Amino acid sequence: MKDGKHSSGPVQAYVVPSGDAHQSEYIAPCDRRREFICGFDGSAGTAVVTERHAAMWTDGRYFLQAGQQMDANWTLMRTGLKETPTQEDWLISVLPENSKVGVDPRIIAADQWKSMSEALGAAGHSLVAVQSNLIDVVWADRAARPSTPLVTLRLEYSGLSWQDKITALRAKMAERRITWFVATALDEVAWLFNLRASDIEYNPVFFAYALVGTSTVILFVDQNRLADPAVRRHLQLDAPDRPELDVQTRPYDSVWTELQTVCASLGTKDSVWICDKASHALTQLIPRVHRCPVANTPLCLAKAVKNATEIQGMRTAHIKDAVALCELFAWLEKEIPRGTVTEISAADKAEEFRSQQKHFVGLSFQTISAVGPNAAIIHYKPMPQTNRTLSTHQVYLIDSGAQFTDGTTDVTRTVHFGTPAAFEKECYTRVLKGHVAVSAAVFPNGTRGHLLEALARAALWEAGLDYLHGTGHGVGCFLNVHEGPCGISFKTLNDVPLEAGMVVSDEPGYYEDGSFGVRLENVVLVVPAETKYDYRDRGSLTMEPLTLVPFQARMIDTQLLTTRERHWLNDYHRKCRETVGAELERQGRREALDWLIRETQVIA
Amino acid sequence: MKDGKHSSGPVQAYVVPSGDAHQSEYIAPCDRRREFICGFDGSAGTAVVTERHAAMWTDGRYFLQAGQQMDANWTLMRTGLKETPTQEDWLISVLPENSKVGVDPRIIAADQWKSMSEALGAAGHSLVAVQSNLIDVVWADRAARPSTPLVTLRLEYSGLSWQDKITALRAKMAERRITWFVATALDEVAWLFNLRASDIEYNPVFFAYALVGTSTVILFVDQNRLADPAVRRHLQLDAPDRPELDVQTRPYDSVWTELQTVCASLGTKDSVWICDKASHALTQLIPRVHRCPVANTPLCLAKAVKNATEIQGMRTAHIKDAVALCELFAWLEKEIPRGTVTEISAADKAEEFRSQQKHFVGLSFQTISAVGPNAAIIHYKPMPQTNRTLSTHQVYLIDSGAQFTDGTTDVTRTVHFGTPAAFEKECYTRVLKGHVAVSAAVFPNGTRGHLLEALARAALWEAGLDYLHGTGHGVGCFLNVHEGPCGISFKTLNDVPLEAGMVVSDEPGYYEDGSFGVRLENVVLVVPAETKYDYRDRGSLTMEPLTLVPFQARMIDTQLLTTRERHWLNDYHRKCRETVGAELERQGRREALDWLIRETQVIA
Repeated sequence: MKDGKHSSGPVQAYVVPSGDAHQSEYIAPCDRRREFICGFDGSAGTAVVTERHAAMWTDGRYFLQAGQQMDANWTLMRTGLKETPTQEDWLISVLPENSKVGVDPRIIAADQWKSMSEALGAAGHSLVAVQSNLIDVVWADRAARPSTPLVTLRLEYSGLSWQDKITALRAKMAERRITWFVATALDEVAWLFNLRASDIEYNPVFFAYALVGTSTVILFVDQNRLADPAVRRHLQLDAPDRPELDVQTRPYDSVWTELQTVCASLGTKDSVWICDKASHALTQLIPRVHRCPVANTPLCLAKAVKNATEIQGMRTAHIKDAVALCELFAWLEKEIPRGTVTEISAADKAEEFRSQQKHFVGLSFQTISAVGPNAAIIHYKPMPQTNRTLSTHQVYLIDSGAQFTDGTTDVTRTVHFGTPAAFEKECYTRVLKGHVAVSAAVFPNGTRGHLLEALARAALWEAGLDYLHGTGHGVGCFLNVHEGPCGISFKTLNDVPLEAGMVVSDEPGYYEDGSFGVRLENVVLVVPAETKYDYRDRGSLTMEPLTLVPFQARMIDTQLLTTRERHWLNDYHRKCRETVGAELERQGRREALDWLIRETQVIA
Repeated sequence: MKDGKHSSGPVQAYVVPSGDAHQSEYIAPCDRRREFICGFDGSAGTAVVTERHAAMWTDGRYFLQAGQQMDANWTLMRTGLKETPTQEDWLISVLPENSKVGVDPRIIAADQWKSMSEALGAAGHSLVAVQSNLIDVVWADRAARPSTPLVTLRLEYSGLSWQDKITALRAKMAERRITWFVATALDEVAWLFNLRASDIEYNPVFFAYALVGTSTVILFVDQNRLADPAVRRHLQLDAPDRPELDVQTRPYDSVWTELQTVCASLGTKDSVWICDKASHALTQLIPRVHRCPVANTPLCLAKAVKNATEIQGMRTAHIKDAVALCELFAWLEKEIPRGTVTEISAADKAEEFRSQQKHFVGLSFQTISAVGPNAAIIHYKPMPQTNRTLSTHQVYLIDSGAQFTDGTTDVTRTVHFGTPAAFEKECYTRVLKGHVAVSAAVFPNGTRGHLLEALARAALWEAGLDYLHGTGHGVGCFLNVHEGPCGISFKTLNDVPLEAGMVVSDEPGYYEDGSFGVRLENVVLVVPAETKYDYRDRGSLTMEPLTLVPFQARMIDTQLLTTRERHWLNDYHRKCRETVGAELERQGRREALDWLIRETQVIA
């Protein structure tokens, strides 16, 4: 920061964002710069270092974890609490006048650059691009960028060929008179070409960019990955069907020069679409007059609405996932009294059961397997030094999911294998009421997800309780377990109207620091709803649970349930029993079936 | 537009915003340019004229009214419907290449200029400032700007002297190292100086600007208004107490030159606060490096949280208002069977009863008095040609309010004097359920109003019903009946966290075009709530109704109410009977008291 040889002069502060050059939420080891500098390895958080201070901003899911992982050199900034300053306000309060704040322009998102640059500028400071990443300069043993084999996704899983996706994208471009589209998000590139890989743990994506013109398609990816004949055939690299679908391939890094070349030859009326969350540096390559930044790209929007094949795949994946979880809970019930099951061994067992299911590829995120106080750490990951033993005396929370070739799952259940305390039951029941309120909600077509947020929280709020995370995120289909642009959150930015075919999670919770945690999560499909009336012929929507795993009756204080909630629960349990029961039967998993039947008894 | 002598060359389109130079919602006759050009006189709407087209954008409250008031030359653009283009997208679709879109820079808000200019610029067009207002050029009989007498507001009504308000503002400025603040909103200037007038109908404000520096206070107002000795004493114009509270007065129009003078002498580190909704032209006078636009000014935020005196005044005003409404409903019940009461005479009667109450100043907005199909027009105003007679066969909706020196009221009740249809009752009951859900909501400190929106709608949504307006707006204290920055709406922009002391309306509705309308509105005070637990010591809030007028039992389908909703209703009615009953008794209004006692009987 001080010697200034990596930028034009010294910088008085340096910002280390969480993401990679693609604004990925989950990142490869080579991109874990924020973890390297401060020790905190959660999925969201920005570190800021000045000559005298070091501070790290993260949200409610990570307050406990970040506090534990960072040493006393770091100040934890709890985003979302009223007293927490923004990064910009904090910088303004600690920096000397006319300071320069450095950041790697290839990592920071264009919209973040813009808002940070404006806020600092208004206070007399400036945000400057530091061309060498200062973390990389001091990070001696930084890993290489991964390049795992590409896997082609057949039509029976994708439901739409990449050629049709390109054609649909071009139609959207034509509507808006756009001549080029730059795809920068890894899941968008993977979705567009019906290709998968495993460059990033849990996310079946690969490092790539794509440039789509009105008659040109360029894929930027490590060229060694294109030797596989199956990939070459899939992309028709050697014999393209039609010239406008001739995929040109270029090395990953040449996107920087190629985009410059494309932009140099733009006509005066040509416009280029790029996500406003693409990196500042890549965005700046497009001359301002040609640049059309969009909050949600057409690929992001198209990907969010699952087609019939994807919906069927998601249903199948969730039934298999439920089979594995029924097995797990039946096994836990038997094993826990022996005192040999730990958070880690339970997580391993869950993975083992999942891996026995057809088309299992891997986990969709690191399993959160948490006993008692560990369950209050929202994104807790069991580690040898924190590993607790499951018992009949404490709540157990497991949040886990898998990647199957036909779909992605994400489910959380909280259970007690003994006698839960009254407060634990009350919290569980209030969380369940919120979960049911979202799942059973009927709302007009076009409703944005944040409007449903209060439904998830009302039963907790009433008792003075709450949780510091959003209620739901979009879920990919054999893609990222967290995807935009739909979701259910108190954050309203970029929250698009819900549409039939979208898939989101419904996961309210309650966390009592140092004691226990409750979270109840289903993945739900947005579906049309039948209503008595139909105001302005807008149509209505509701949620259909894809996740089919029972809620634990012994954790429910039935006094707190309304009649409608009880009916919803009994209907849901009947569906679990019928659908998952049939599959357990087919797979001959007797013990799990017995467990399922017992756990889905009618609640009176 | 074509001759170009009013701007630097011809413009291909001209935008006519709704507001005045202060972004007032309610405007003086001289500022009703949009009404002059298109005929639509609602409180919100923007007209856009091109060489070939004319279109006007307004929101769901005004779809019916605008359709009736505008002739076939105008296209009505229904904001909020999915198929409706934005003004920018529509302009891009109809304009020839490289078009110039003109607008009066003294009328358009800076934030609107920015977004419109960016969107047009991205498509190769440009937004240009037209210095002469093109409407004024063709508007022969435009009225003069009003200049009504200033009235001073004593401490027993304001609760805080203007001197203390200036001092508090300066403290906020010091926190943010701000050297000047430009007050442009009329209600902010009126609130700051504890002055009122009647320049704009229903809004007790006056045309003025204010400039507050660290040791300077300048009020820009028609100088003739300052001759009144009471005003001179109130502002200490002839003998200021302290030099830093010496109010300098300047003519209204000299804000343009004075702000330039102030800006010319700014030091390099000086910053000027201005609302981002101030006019583009005024904003541009502040050099970019010194300009700090804010979505909500410190005055706007301070004004929203009522002090103890204001709260007491609001309570008193609402009791008087309820007395007038009890009188009205008792009178209507008696008169309607005679067939002589019309929408207009009912509205007049309501005003008459209100005017009998102490400290009555005037109405707070034009009374919406609507029978049957007229009630489906959300902001309907009875006119001789639309005037319907109240009967025992149709629903009657009255939305009305008053300005009292101690507070502002706004209340809507929907009633039926015969036997309502089952569908009318169902709609009324679902609207009531939404009203109660918001009013009884318990939520954490810091919750933003939009989060409560779904609570107001859930019971309607469930049946496929909805309403196309927000659920609540902030309410001033003897000030504008609509004020920011708090509210309850699906629009999330500039929606600040709710705090104890804020006052908002709670007014869900349902409108069946051509048939009937239901709206149930109370003004509610945000108050601390007692809860069983207190997560992270954040504290909870709930609503206390200030409006105390019974809901009509015969419109309620009690089958649709939950036990809790029935309890809320009975508690509310008991409070109406006790509080308003005592005042009716005191005022000797026997018939109205009898009516109140009958209407507040326990619902079983």
